[in-house]
Amino acid sequence: MATDRFQSRRNRLVRKLRKTNADVMLVTYEPNVTYLTGFSGDSSYLLLAKDLAVMVSDSRYTTQIQEECPGLEARIRKTAETILDTALKLARKQKIKKLAVEADTLAVSLWQRLGEQIPLQPTSGLVEELRMVKDADEIAEIRRAIDQAERGFGFLQAGLQDTMTELNVAHDLEHAMRRFGAEKAAFEIIAAVGDRAALPHARPGRRPVSSAEFLLIDWGAHSLGGYKSDLTRMLVTGKILPKLKKLYEVVLKAQEAGIAAIGPGVASRDVDRAARSVIERAGYGKQFGHGLGHGFGLEIHEHPRLSPVTKTRLSPGMVITIEPGIYLPGWGGIRIEDDVLVTRDGCEVLTSLPKQFADSVLR
Amino acid sequence: MATDRFQSRRNRLVRKLRKTNADVMLVTYEPNVTYLTGFSGDSSYLLLAKDLAVMVSDSRYTTQIQEECPGLEARIRKTAETILDTALKLARKQKIKKLAVEADTLAVSLWQRLGEQIPLQPTSGLVEELRMVKDADEIAEIRRAIDQAERGFGFLQAGLQDTMTELNVAHDLEHAMRRFGAEKAAFEIIAAVGDRAALPHARPGRRPVSSAEFLLIDWGAHSLGGYKSDLTRMLVTGKILPKLKKLYEVVLKAQEAGIAAIGPGVASRDVDRAARSVIERAGYGKQFGHGLGHGFGLEIHEHPRLSPVTKTRLSPGMVITIEPGIYLPGWGGIRIEDDVLVTRDGCEVLTSLPKQFADSVLR
Repeated sequence: MATDRFQSRRNRLVRKLRKTNADVMLVTYEPNVTYLTGFSGDSSYLLLAKDLAVMVSDSRYTTQIQEECPGLEARIRKTAETILDTALKLARKQKIKKLAVEADTLAVSLWQRLGEQIPLQPTSGLVEELRMVKDADEIAEIRRAIDQAERGFGFLQAGLQDTMTELNVAHDLEHAMRRFGAEKAAFEIIAAVGDRAALPHARPGRRPVSSAEFLLIDWGAHSLGGYKSDLTRMLVTGKILPKLKKLYEVVLKAQEAGIAAIGPGVASRDVDRAARSVIERAGYGKQFGHGLGHGFGLEIHEHPRLSPVTKTRLSPGMVITIEPGIYLPGWGGIRIEDDVLVTRDGCEVLTSLPKQFADSVLR
Repeated sequence: MATDRFQSRRNRLVRKLRKTNADVMLVTYEPNVTYLTGFSGDSSYLLLAKDLAVMVSDSRYTTQIQEECPGLEARIRKTAETILDTALKLARKQKIKKLAVEADTLAVSLWQRLGEQIPLQPTSGLVEELRMVKDADEIAEIRRAIDQAERGFGFLQAGLQDTMTELNVAHDLEHAMRRFGAEKAAFEIIAAVGDRAALPHARPGRRPVSSAEFLLIDWGAHSLGGYKSDLTRMLVTGKILPKLKKLYEVVLKAQEAGIAAIGPGVASRDVDRAARSVIERAGYGKQFGHGLGHGFGLEIHEHPRLSPVTKTRLSPGMVITIEPGIYLPGWGGIRIEDDVLVTRDGCEVLTSLPKQFADSVLR
């Protein structure tokens, strides 16, 4: 991996920093440190200014920082010192007026300790805004995570048995994605049989696949490069329920309408609207209780969010999920989810698993 | 699971709260919410006072809270409201003077928004101090996580092949623990071949087992009940290096000395000393760069810490790791780790995998 891409991300952040009252920023939020440096460990902060980029870490990570962040200056804290002490010392040497910190994730006690020593400028979402628009390396890594998820799903499907429980399905699917190079699952896999699928965040349990006619699987891979994918598919494992088929077609139409609405400059709530109105017209508006989708990348939930109230406009390079659903408590739920890249002239659906109702039916 | 155990934990916290200036506490840190309620989801806060215990959550979790926290009052936020708004409304109804918050984990931006509405009292470690001493249910759950880890390791060992990479080993081990009921690995498993074992936090990579004479595996299970285990064993996969055997015996002696020193009322740094002095006498003091061990439970690192500088004294019910190591950069590292319960008259080693040098040698 080239290092200049991290340099160029840091340069963009430094330019954003100018619009705040601070001249130096202490980046403490782990995914943001990773985004700006390529470092995949934890417990490490990045001190950043116009002509300054120093990683503050501890001796466990000396080698890993050298390997993952060639060319980046690192300051390893002494054992008796906290990472905050070391960062403070460095910051003071810069004779700074104000130190920008990440208020949405920095803990109060660290904020108070820092604030006793140096004037602080709380900031919100500076790095997250950069992360909304993916660069070419990130998109390639997301494609990798999607490939791992899709191949893993194919392998799971090929070996699926009635006697398997939701937990078996979730665990086998993670193991299958790893066969194809994933580091792990992108999040706790949802494998929900029958009425459990009515819970958008069901935890897998001991229920066997055979205990209902269908199951919902919501999964994704976390690539070795740290990027994620996020998909949902239904599997029909028993007799074909007419109600299931009917609802499935509504959700699929809604999803297609949502995807068709995606393009640069489009308001994310209009994409939500395009999909939601299909479900509303079918009479299930109240049974679709969550937003249509969300950005993802180093984290599984990133900006932009797609919901009736969000205000973001889509830009080329954003990667989002489109995942409408209908949930009937006590009966079950249906959700179909794909990953979409916003392009200069519309969008590209990055996921490619078939999703017609007939494709869900297992022989 | 009985619910009264959560009630009794909450009662203990309320008694501790009396010593602060606050009359109500907002518990926001996820493992602490789990400890006090049994709830295993996220994005949920607990508002707690003498005659008040209300879970504040969102509609995804309505059913799960009913299932996991029978009898606990829940307030589900409206879609247009944030969880903080809902918690604030509730808090205000209590006509409180000061609201205690968890300063070590609460984010600055939430702190500031709360502070505009209500006087706040930052607190540190109130719930964590309770969590240091495990109750009978927690110890039973930790025993379960240890059993899953040990059986998984046995299964891995039985199928280990020279061509497997560090990643294969780590992934197969997690999958094996799940066979025996684990939800997942307790943390990112370390499987480090040869000189990679010199990094106390090595990330598994594509190196095959056959590329060196030994590997280090540091792993644990996360039980369905949410508790963890944490072990380290060496496996000799090639010819027996005299240097390895010699260092191994030093580390094992150090570990046995550490375990022998454990008992109620003993200073945790004295346990560290007992083990560390064995390694120092052998001439490798500088090659043992981390603390001797740490508490664990719902999280993999909890108090007490065992190091030359920590001040905690051990009490019955604490569960700690004892994990001395010797690390020689460029050559390799040796670590042996077991889990130990402090009892009224000494300690009980909860882990039972054999650990003589001969036990490490694979046929």
